This record gives sequence, structure tokens and C-alpha cells, in this order.
Amino acid sequence: MDQDIARPFPLNAWYAAAWDHEVKRELTPRTICNKKIVFWRRSDGSVAAVEDACWHRLLPLSLGRLDGDNVVCGYHGLAFDGHGRCTRMPSQETRNPSAGVRAYPTIQKHRFVWVWPGDPALADPALVPDLHWNHDPEWAGDGKMIHVKCDYRLVVDNLMDLTHETFVHHSSIGNEAVAEAPFVATHGDRFATVTRWMKDIDAPPFWRGQLGKAGNVDRWQIVRFEAPCTIAIDVGVAPTGTGAPEGDRSQGVNGFVLNSITPETDRTCLYFWAFVRNYRIGEQVLTTQLREGVSTIFREDELVLEAQQKAMDEHPDRAFYNLNIDAGSMWARRLIDRMTAKEAQAQVAQAAE
Amino acid sequence: MDQDIARPFPLNAWYAAAWDHEVKRELTPRTICNKKIVFWRRSDGSVAAVEDACWHRLLPLSLGRLDGDNVVCGYHGLAFDGHGRCTRMPSQETRNPSAGVRAYPTIQKHRFVWVWPGDPALADPALVPDLHWNHDPEWAGDGKMIHVKCDYRLVVDNLMDLTHETFVHHSSIGNEAVAEAPFVATHGDRFATVTRWMKDIDAPPFWRGQLGKAGNVDRWQIVRFEAPCTIAIDVGVAPTGTGAPEGDRSQGVNGFVLNSITPETDRTCLYFWAFVRNYRIGEQVLTTQLREGVSTIFREDELVLEAQQKAMDEHPDRAFYNLNIDAGSMWARRLIDRMTAKEAQAQVAQAAE
Amino acid sequence: MDQDIARPFPLNAWYAAAWDHEVKRELTPRTICNKKIVFWRRSDGSVAAVEDACWHRLLPLSLGRLDGDNVVCGYHGLAFDGHGRCTRMPSQETRNPSAGVRAYPTIQKHRFVWVWPGDPALADPALVPDLHWNHDPEWAGDGKMIHVKCDYRLVVDNLMDLTHETFVHHSSIGNEAVAEAPFVATHGDRFATVTRWMKDIDAPPFWRGQLGKAGNVDRWQIVRFEAPCTIAIDVGVAPTGTGAPEGDRSQGVNGFVLNSITPETDRTCLYFWAFVRNYRIGEQVLTTQLREGVSTIFREDELVLEAQQKAMDEHPDRAFYNLNIDAGSMWARRLIDRMTAKEAQAQVAQAAE
Repeated sequence: MDQDIARPFPLNAWYAAAWDHEVKRELTPRTICNKKIVFWRRSDGSVAAVEDACWHRLLPLSLGRLDGDNVVCGYHGLAFDGHGRCTRMPSQETRNPSAGVRAYPTIQKHRFVWVWPGDPALADPALVPDLHWNHDPEWAGDGKMIHVKCDYRLVVDNLMDLTHETFVHHSSIGNEAVAEAPFVATHGDRFATVTRWMKDIDAPPFWRGQLGKAGNVDRWQIVRFEAPCTIAIDVGVAPTGTGAPEGDRSQGVNGFVLNSITPETDRTCLYFWAFVRNYRIGEQVLTTQLREGVSTIFREDELVLEAQQKAMDEHPDRAFYNLNIDAGSMWARRLIDRMTAKEAQAQVAQAAE
Repeated sequence: MDQDIARPFPLNAWYAAAWDHEVKRELTPRTICNKKIVFWRRSDGSVAAVEDACWHRLLPLSLGRLDGDNVVCGYHGLAFDGHGRCTRMPSQETRNPSAGVRAYPTIQKHRFVWVWPGDPALADPALVPDLHWNHDPEWAGDGKMIHVKCDYRLVVDNLMDLTHETFVHHSSIGNEAVAEAPFVATHGDRFATVTRWMKDIDAPPFWRGQLGKAGNVDRWQIVRFEAPCTIAIDVGVAPTGTGAPEGDRSQGVNGFVLNSITPETDRTCLYFWAFVRNYRIGEQVLTTQLREGVSTIFREDELVLEAQQKAMDEHPDRAFYNLNIDAGSMWARRLIDRMTAKEAQAQVAQAAE
Repeated sequence: MDQDIARPFPLNAWYAAAWDHEVKRELTPRTICNKKIVFWRRSDGSVAAVEDACWHRLLPLSLGRLDGDNVVCGYHGLAFDGHGRCTRMPSQETRNPSAGVRAYPTIQKHRFVWVWPGDPALADPALVPDLHWNHDPEWAGDGKMIHVKCDYRLVVDNLMDLTHETFVHHSSIGNEAVAEAPFVATHGDRFATVTRWMKDIDAPPFWRGQLGKAGNVDRWQIVRFEAPCTIAIDVGVAPTGTGAPEGDRSQGVNGFVLNSITPETDRTCLYFWAFVRNYRIGEQVLTTQLREGVSTIFREDELVLEAQQKAMDEHPDRAFYNLNIDAGSMWARRLIDRMTAKEAQAQVAQAAE
């Protein structure tokens, strides 16, 4: 186990490492939680993930090549299988039995490849975060992965407080109503939610377009955080008076913004997002339009988040002040802190044995 | 007050932050003495300057927008007036009374906007450095601001010893006479001067052009340093024998090189300079020609200064040796050191109370 | 003497600083063993080398100009001869007798300019590494200098174990035979060798082209390391059965790969290489073709070496594991370590006096 106990993320968690289509029969390097990992797809379709540094002289294995289901180092030809075991050494018959590289558990689910950077014995498939909408036949949509130069928790903060839409996304999904409407925050052991209903308001441009009807709307944003870094947001609008707040959304339009923000390093992250909808689901052109349109909204966040990280680096002694609007992000951070504290305690206990 | 007492510049001083025309009705970020500051012009024409980091989550306020005379943060919409007081928080009626950002005293004088990064109670307008020639109707001229990647004191050294003109500016204002002529250095509490008369010499190309006459000249350079970083240089030539050394400059041409070098960080600076003259003052074309021509001379200095800073960074243990020519810069540095030592003592005394 | 005793290279050694043709009657800056040095050729053809930082204010002397055989600083005009003595100061008649910059012994041999960064009293010309093939009339060839961003010892490792040819250079000089053939490693006080004969094998593309005959060959690689960083490799192929292993190479083709890898900094190096041959030595076109062709092979090494250095920087706690193939490089490193340990002991002894 690593000795760094001040780490800003737990290691015992499933992290989105790639969209499923990104991992092919070729070597794909990626950094997850400060760990350099090389991914490839085996001939049986499963995904292998091992440390991206040769046991012998540290050259990244991703600079080598695949030989069947094994990776061959591009310097001296050592080969390793997907379990990290060395299967070939040059110029010698017997292999050092300890030769090998670390392997990481992977799982493919909800159109993502997930990796578990911590203790493999704890890698329970039941703990993969719930983003089922991403492959549910009743929902359609698509997304991207963007690389953001900030601590992943700043993205979590951003998503747990959508009042920023008013100021960051005023040309698309934000208007004054978002910053003014009241909200309710709840939390459990692994989850935190923020629910905001904006009733009888003018729809912002994006939603007016999706709804395709004039007249005031009831708008909802139901944010669901699953520790440490996955957030599914139930969003939509329905004409005011058609019963959405009471549960009948049949006259409105409903989407889910799916987000999983994987720490790459302490100050960079891989941000996987998708937008799915339960209307006009057969229209591929709409899927494409939405993916590209929503992409520009995420770009607005990216600029703010990277500027915020840079400002934090320039003011290392400054803490954040919290407002009422930060209730949701405060809970999300507490749940993250509990996970990292638990890991730190386990390490201390292990060291004491 | 900052706790850093080894700082290479005093904080209790007026520093040129911008040319007056640079600060408009828009947000202008600038770093002065390691402090990120956002400037804007209020509707009454005065200049506001506050810390460029939102109280809430540190996003640079310069990424937001102006709303009347207030700045609105581009992330969650907190608004601040020019005194740094928070005037609006999103989604809440009552504002945290401690919410605010630091404001800095400013003053507009001699065509520059000056800022006082230290204790506002000490910001005496009478202490603005004297660069009155820059707006005196008997003088005409213009200048620029250049960003130089070196400790501001290296620029002070450069200007306090003009023998470098012989080697750095030999195609314009330098010739052997500068390096060979004797000089006199004096100093007071806040001022240091270096006076050099080069009598009966050939004029270097720049001055030959300005004078527009053949024959030997008497040339003068009277450098006046005002701590911590403003230097006005009385320069010119007159035909030899017409009495310039005795006080009659009527047959010659006279200019002032005005310099104020503001520390941006410990190793970068904002170098404000102007060249003004008291001849042909109505000719705007000459003003433009001189500004652009002199600009290439400052570029020669910039290359040397940045190479020197780089060499210093590479040789952190090496001190400078001083020659006779460094008498002026040694006095300038002593006056700077006195200011920083005085501030350090005040801090220690304050801490002991 | 420097106080850094953990240095990865000895200072008391001749290091290749430039190809002979690179040092002309102009100022040529180069960094050798972390020391900034400016080289120039004197009017008598000898090479001067002094510290590239003016005694006065540290400006690199290489930014100045040559005045006869002396260098003149580009800031204030101090002049220094090739022994580092100050020969001119501006504006003063008497010169500070201690004024000067450090001079370094140089020697020109085997088409390279060598410099001795350590104690000048120990700079014995007899210690210049043996690369005589580079100017021997019985051999013809040429080479280059490449700048590689890695510890010079990684290049030594690379050359002491040529099994990497199979994986890094499979399109030119590598095939499976290299990784499979046995080898013999020997060592002395300043030398280490690795000898590999690959008998009755198919020739790789490069050697097939040089030999110009069909049929299996006997191939040899006789690597000779001379501490700290010079490696001459006797290489070639001859048709199997013509007696090459027994000493008769007359039916084959023979070349020497000459390498001297000079530490620039702890993590960068100047890699001087040449390929010379004892066949078709009058054909300049072949010399040019070989230089350019071999150049692409060295580029393949460069990519691997820089990736390895980067990986080492990212894994500072990881040691290398050694395989059988590393026998030669282990000896080379031991000889280097002995030289640096000897210097460290001498420093400690000197400090204790």
C-alpha cells in the first residue's frame, strides 16, 4: 500500500478509466490516482490493466507492443501477461520468479471501463457507481471525456451547486431563477442529494428548445452524488400546471447528466460525462447535436475550474468560505473525507501490526 | 501584513501599475509585488483596485464582469464594490458581514496609475515619485510598458550605470566616451544621483540626429534615482563651446528618460518608460518616431537583463563584484535596503506587541 | 572544488565538448558536467574554454564578442583572455588583481575538443579516451552530436547491452539472434568489455546491405567501455565459414561505432557518436549515407532513453532490477562509481586538512 495518507482521493474505489470504445486491441496508457497504468483489450474481450513501467528498467510498457494477450517491453523484450506476470526474459532460460508488474482489477459497465487502484482483495463489482441510464434502452445519449487541470473535487463542488449556471452558463441553461430558487440537501453514507424545483419560470434557451413549447415551465434539478466522484443529475422541464412537481412528467422533457470525475493526479482529472434523454430516443441526429452542444457548456466549466485551481495554487494558505449554496458540496466532501480517513486508519493499523 | 521579511522590495510605496489610458471601464488584472490585483475605472473616473480572488472560492474576479462600479464574480455571482465590500451573495438574503476582498489605494498622476500594496494608512499622496515631465506642457513625449523577466533591481542597476551604453547600445546612444568619462555620484535619504559630462566628444548616432548639427558636442547624463524604483535621467547634447556645462543649454537638445520599474514578482517586473523632450514639442510625428526608436534600445536592455537574471538563478551562491562604475547602483540598493529593513523592523515590533 | 559529493559523474576526466569543426573563431557556449563554459578558437588554432559568466555581474560571456583572442563582456565591456584573466575594466585604470573567471584545460584529439572540468593540475593528456579510429587513415566515417534528455549513464547501459537492438532497432541492425546469442563480459581498472559472436545467422538488413553478399554470416559485437563514458564498438559480419571467429575478417565488412557521452547536467547529456569503416573508405557518398542512415538508429535510442529518464523521475524510489544481459553495464557503472567515490574521498580528506 502507498504510504501517502494525505491523499485527496480514496484508492479503494472503482474509477472510470475510459469509455468502453476507447480500449481496443492496442496499448492505451492512462494515469489514474497518480498511478501510471497501461490498458489493453484481451482477445476474449476483457480489459487488462497493469503498471505502465517495466519491472527491469522502468520503460513505460505502453511504448512496447501487444503480442497476443501479452505486452512486450519496447526496450529489452520482457513480456508480461494481464496479471502482470513476466512470461519472457531475453537471453536467459530461467526467469526471476519475483519478476512482474502490478495488475489492477477492471470491470466494464455502463459503457465505461472502471479500474480499482487500491487493494485488489476489496474490489467488489457491486460497488461500481450507478450510471445505468447510460446503457438503458429507455434512455438515449452520448458523451465525452475531457481532461481538466484541477483537483477532481472542484468538479464535484461545481456539480453540487448549480447556481453557477446563472453566471457561467447564462447563454444556455442558466438564468436568474437557478440562483434564486430554494433547494433541499440530504445525505446518507455514500450518497448526497440536492433537489431544486424552479416553478412557473421562463425556460432558459436550452430547455425551451428541447421542450418545443411556449409558456412558463416547472424546472427540476435533482443531483445525486455517489462517493467519491460520480454524480447523476435528473434534469428537465414541464409546462407549468401539468403536474411535474407532483410526479407527472409526461408533458415535459427529462434528461440525465451523468458525470464521473476520475483523479488523474492531485491537480488534474479525467472528466467523463454523458447526456441522456428519454424522449425522441431513436433520433441519432439529436444525440449527436446534444453531445456537441452540451460539450460547449462543459467547456465553460473547464475554463472556470482551471482558473480556480490556478488561483488555489497561488494562494496555498487560503481556505474556502462556504455559503448556503455550498450545502451539497460540503456533504460530498465529507463523504470523500470519510473514505480517505478510513483508508488512512487502515494503513496506520496495518503498520502497527 | 505579510510575514515575508526577506522581500526584495518595500510594500509601503507607490508603484506604477499602468499607464493612465490602460485602465478603462473593464476589468484589468495585474500583479504588483506578488499581489494579484484587478483594476477598473469607476464611472466618476477614479480607479478601483481590489484583490483579484473572490472571497468565496478564489476565482479571479477579473474573469467576471463589471456591473456599474462593482465587480461581479464569474462563478457564483458574488459582487464587490471598489472598497472590496461584498454587495451581493446568490441565494441568500443576509450577507456574511466579514465577506470582502482587500482593496488597495490608488492615485492617478504623471500619466500613470499608481497603487500602494502596503498598509493603506500610510498611503500618502505626497510620496508619489516625481515624474512631472511626463505631463508638463513644456515637455512632449510618450512611452510604453514592457514586461521584463528579471528582479526590478537589475533594471535599477542598469540605469544607474550608463557605461553599459557603450557595449549594449553602441549603434544608437553608446560610444567609447560614455565608458571613459568620469562621473560624480551623490545621495540623500530617498535620492541618489550620478552625473556624467562628456565634453568635446563626437556625438553618438541618436544624438547627432536629434541635434541636427555637425561638430563636437558636450553631452550630459544626470541620473536621479528616487527610492525604491523610479529614475529620471536628464540627457542631452549641445555644441562644444556654447556653454552647456556652465548652464546654458539653449544651443543644444534636452530630453528626459523617465523610468519606473514595478516589481511584479521577485523575478519579473513591469518596466514603465517614457522619453520626453523640450524641443519640437508640437511635432506628433517626432513623438511617435522617438517612442518607437527608443523602444528598440530598451529591447537591447531587456535581452541583457533577462540573461543576467537567468545566470543569477543558475549561480545562486555567487555574489556580484562591484567596480567604480557601480557607485550609483550601490547607493540605490542601499536606499532600497533601508526601506525593506524598516518594514521588517516594524513587522517584528508589531509581532512582539 | 565543488562540495557536491553525490555527483553522478567524476570531474577529473576528459569529456568530449564538441566536434573539432564546431569550435570556430566565435563564442560557443556549452554546459559540461553542470558547468557553463564558453569555448572559442584562438588565432593560433588552440581552443580556449572559460566559465561562461562574467566576474562582474554574471552575464554569460558568450553573449559578448571576441576581440582578438579575448572575450569581451556584452554588458560593461570587461575583457578576459583564454586563461580567464581580466585584461580590461571600463572606466578605471587599475584592475582588481583578483578579477578573473575560471579557465578549463582543453585538448583537441580524435576529431573532438575535450575539456577537463575538474582540477587542472590533474589534466593529463594521456588520459584522453581512445577513439583513434576517428582520424586513422585506414578508417573512414563521420558522426554527429545529439542532445539527449537523460542521465549519461542510461546511454552507457544502452550500449553495454546490445540485446536492445532486437526490440528497438528491429528494422535495421536488430534481429532475434542478438537477444539469443551468448556473450562474454570482462573488466579491468578503467575498461570493461562485452563480446558477442552470433554464428551462422541471417544478417539483419543493415549488415546485409554493407556486405553485399547472400548467405548466412558470422556477426560480431565487441564493446569496449573506457570509464567514465566512452565506448568503442567493433562490429561487423563475414560469410560463415570464412574464418572471422578465428581472426580472418578479410571476407567480411568491419566498422567501429564510436561513442562518447558527456554529462551536460544530471539529467541531460551530449552524445557524440561516429560510425567508421575500413572498407570502401574513399567513397564520400557512402560516408554521408552511413552518417544519415545511422542517425535514424540513434534517434530510436533517444526516444527510449528519454522515456526511461522520465519514468525514473516519476518513480524516484524505484531501483533497477538486473538481468544476465546487464553484466556489462553493471561493470561500467562500478568503474564510474569508483571514480566518483575516489573524488569524494579526496574532497573529504582535503576538507579535513
